[in-house]
Amino acid sequence: CEYSEDMLPVVTRQREADLALQKLFESVIALAANRGRLAPALSPELAARALLLLVNGSVLDWLRAPGELELTARTMPLVAGFLESISAPKAQPAADQARLALFLGV
Amino acid sequence: CEYSEDMLPVVTRQREADLALQKLFESVIALAANRGRLAPALSPELAARALLLLVNGSVLDWLRAPGELELTARTMPLVAGFLESISAPKAQPAADQARLALFLGV
Repeated sequence: CEYSEDMLPVVTRQREADLALQKLFESVIALAANRGRLAPALSPELAARALLLLVNGSVLDWLRAPGELELTARTMPLVAGFLESISAPKAQPAADQARLALFLGV
Repeated sequence: CEYSEDMLPVVTRQREADLALQKLFESVIALAANRGRLAPALSPELAARALLLLVNGSVLDWLRAPGELELTARTMPLVAGFLESISAPKAQPAADQARLALFLGV
């Protein structure tokens, strides 16, 4: 198996498709960031790139082991956990308690 | 270019190497989890798998575009940001303030 010249257009098309999907992810994540819902650890660009690598890598593993893995069941927990990881923390009970304590003067 | 029989041992070796690296990542992340330093969104197993996909995907992109990308400069911010994302939040100033407010009775 050689990686010959005739594969170049395929590789180029794949890179273009990857970039388009990454841009789509980035625009959605940037919307979340504008609403303060993205944790500061990753920029929308890096978060989109990470998400693309997780999805593409899962598909590639699935293609390499046909019949062994169930794509959706294996990928969804990974993607859901990643999205939760990059989300800004929800309202903190501790902060609410502090505000309440200050308000009540206790 | 055909993906012929003679490539199968290579694919098998690659999968074994991937699994070994994922297990190594998982053991280190599990140590962090035991110390309460892993956020609950991803288990050590899923976090290790995500980390492997990020690293392998970055290398693959770099191999596909030789000379265009600088591997380390492109991968490190992604990996560092991911590790920060999956870390348990540090001590919260708001919680400290709440404790202080309660202690001082203000």
